[in-house]
Amino acid sequence: MTDSPVLALAKDLISRQSVTPEDADCQKVMIERLEKLGFEIEVMVFEDTTNFWARRGQQAPLFAFAGHTDVVPAGPLDQWNTSPFEPTIIDGYLYGRGAADMKGSLACMLVAAERFVAEHPDHKGSIAFLITSDEEGPFINGTTRVIDTLMARDEKIDMCIVGEPSSTNHVGDVVKNGRRGSITGDLRVKGIQGHVAYPHLANNPIHKAMPALAELAATEWDQGNAYFPPTSFQIPNLQAGTGASNVIPGEFDVQFNFRFSTELTDETIKSRVHTVLDQHQLDYDLKWTLSGHPFLTDTGALLDAVVTGVEAVNGTKPELLTTGGTSDGRFIARMGAQVVELGPVNATIHKVNECVKVDDLEKLTDMFEQTLVNLLGQ
Amino acid sequence: MTDSPVLALAKDLISRQSVTPEDADCQKVMIERLEKLGFEIEVMVFEDTTNFWARRGQQAPLFAFAGHTDVVPAGPLDQWNTSPFEPTIIDGYLYGRGAADMKGSLACMLVAAERFVAEHPDHKGSIAFLITSDEEGPFINGTTRVIDTLMARDEKIDMCIVGEPSSTNHVGDVVKNGRRGSITGDLRVKGIQGHVAYPHLANNPIHKAMPALAELAATEWDQGNAYFPPTSFQIPNLQAGTGASNVIPGEFDVQFNFRFSTELTDETIKSRVHTVLDQHQLDYDLKWTLSGHPFLTDTGALLDAVVTGVEAVNGTKPELLTTGGTSDGRFIARMGAQVVELGPVNATIHKVNECVKVDDLEKLTDMFEQTLVNLLGQ
Repeated sequence: MTDSPVLALAKDLISRQSVTPEDADCQKVMIERLEKLGFEIEVMVFEDTTNFWARRGQQAPLFAFAGHTDVVPAGPLDQWNTSPFEPTIIDGYLYGRGAADMKGSLACMLVAAERFVAEHPDHKGSIAFLITSDEEGPFINGTTRVIDTLMARDEKIDMCIVGEPSSTNHVGDVVKNGRRGSITGDLRVKGIQGHVAYPHLANNPIHKAMPALAELAATEWDQGNAYFPPTSFQIPNLQAGTGASNVIPGEFDVQFNFRFSTELTDETIKSRVHTVLDQHQLDYDLKWTLSGHPFLTDTGALLDAVVTGVEAVNGTKPELLTTGGTSDGRFIARMGAQVVELGPVNATIHKVNECVKVDDLEKLTDMFEQTLVNLLGQ
Repeated sequence: MTDSPVLALAKDLISRQSVTPEDADCQKVMIERLEKLGFEIEVMVFEDTTNFWARRGQQAPLFAFAGHTDVVPAGPLDQWNTSPFEPTIIDGYLYGRGAADMKGSLACMLVAAERFVAEHPDHKGSIAFLITSDEEGPFINGTTRVIDTLMARDEKIDMCIVGEPSSTNHVGDVVKNGRRGSITGDLRVKGIQGHVAYPHLANNPIHKAMPALAELAATEWDQGNAYFPPTSFQIPNLQAGTGASNVIPGEFDVQFNFRFSTELTDETIKSRVHTVLDQHQLDYDLKWTLSGHPFLTDTGALLDAVVTGVEAVNGTKPELLTTGGTSDGRFIARMGAQVVELGPVNATIHKVNECVKVDDLEKLTDMFEQTLVNLLGQ
């Protein structure tokens, strides 16, 4: 039996060992096919990262598919049942690193665009592809740099589907219509070092800081809203001490991270944290790193088209969620675009034996094509 | 001008580079002089550590001087004004590693014993020296092993002066008549590792433990007593986290240390800590290490003799304190001996430019001799 176009393309992409920031010519494969469809191609290389921007049409609205060709490392090979870069079908599932995150999605987008353009050569608006090979890495030279370039020349994406694996049990059961923001605080609480036997001559920064940290951990930051769970505060890392059991440390380093809803801004969070630390009269330095603002696409043409597209294939509407980690969607949202994420089931991503149901690839292609029809069909 | 006997001996000992557990023949120098006085010498080598036990007389009471020939490392040589192992007198102070802790004391003890024996060749009771070269190190093969040996043969020290630098501003202003106990807890609080974006699937052990640790830090363990400051709780070390800002750690390691008075026992402390941890419903492992029970010599012939001896030289009584770190006194106290510590000013110990006032060495020798007269003189 010959592989379907989407399965054949997914296999081709998986067989290329494009561990971040490598692309291994995945983009070349995509570009060659997009050129045949009449897309104008712009390769954008930033440092070690290869990206491309492809656009068909000059009119608004500008709809874009976004995704990445890079994958996370395979991990322990002896725990894989198949070779991670040799795409293999077992019992209706396609196995290989990137099958679900997100080379399967890339194949679906591309085949959907091919079918749509074949049926609607004179479609409304414009279709684009924004593809990077730096989504799993430091995300410095990938999507965010492409967006910078587009914004600098006033080229604005109006609507975007990011092909991240959004689904939980079967493809299309969940569409992500936003993501929480993420901000990290690196806190150093300062005390006075000394000998444990002479505590009155020292000032233990751990003892000083614990009530403040306990208060931060117990705080209800917000109650979330219809689309977002409540903002969460977590301490992933902390460290203090010289290793000696008789020395009171002079410094206490704590790192905390907020995943925050659209009910809060990063500025509100910073202000509230400083208030708590100051109320506890801590002597401290605090460095903030904002990984992304929260974004939400709760209404509009894109969400309507995607929901209708999924429903046309599955017979049921997708659930709209904003849970999970950050994605490149946050970079695209900052240009004011409507952004949703729709992709395969995410149960096996970043794990050994990553896989995607072959049938889901066909369905996802249909969903993408239907969305294009809804948005840009004549 | 010729050096006095005590100064000459102190210089000789300082010039020997006896960094723990080295002895560099310091003990040989002491032994040769004690043999001439009629002491019976017993060298006790345990692993890498040389100790000796010297005794003159077979009667009770048995009075012992205890001390150590080892010193801490010199530290940064460029911060020393003199060479640390070349004893040098500047402005009435003798400089060199070990000058105050405690080769000066050793010289004073030995010269005091020489003078006392010359005047009282048929003294009451017995005089002994318990000398180790492992006081500044792991204190495994030093005093504690000698005490084990003595206890095994029912040879009991009744009274002991440890020559540790007990003084604050001038020699004899403080006599230590006890020491706090020390016990360390190594706590591992267990949670469930997970992704920061999915806190409901994880269980952050830091968040769970902080209120319990804050409670332990805020607890009044006792109010101390006439001789001891209140028991203190300190967290010298803690660590959690993988280093990644998006991973909730699965374990949280905390080390805490108690310096405790005679108002508490180690068993009481353990019980109270477990009660707090259990009340906070923590899942944890806790390993205890007892470094020493507290001891106190608050009355008796030894304390009377030492206080009178100091007063005879200084004209004022010493202050009796139990502050400061642990000492080998804790090992001697466990055989039921009365133990006090009397030695030079401790301002420069374990630091660069360690020194002792030359005049204080003469005074300390007089104090030791006077104590011997008070206790064992006919």
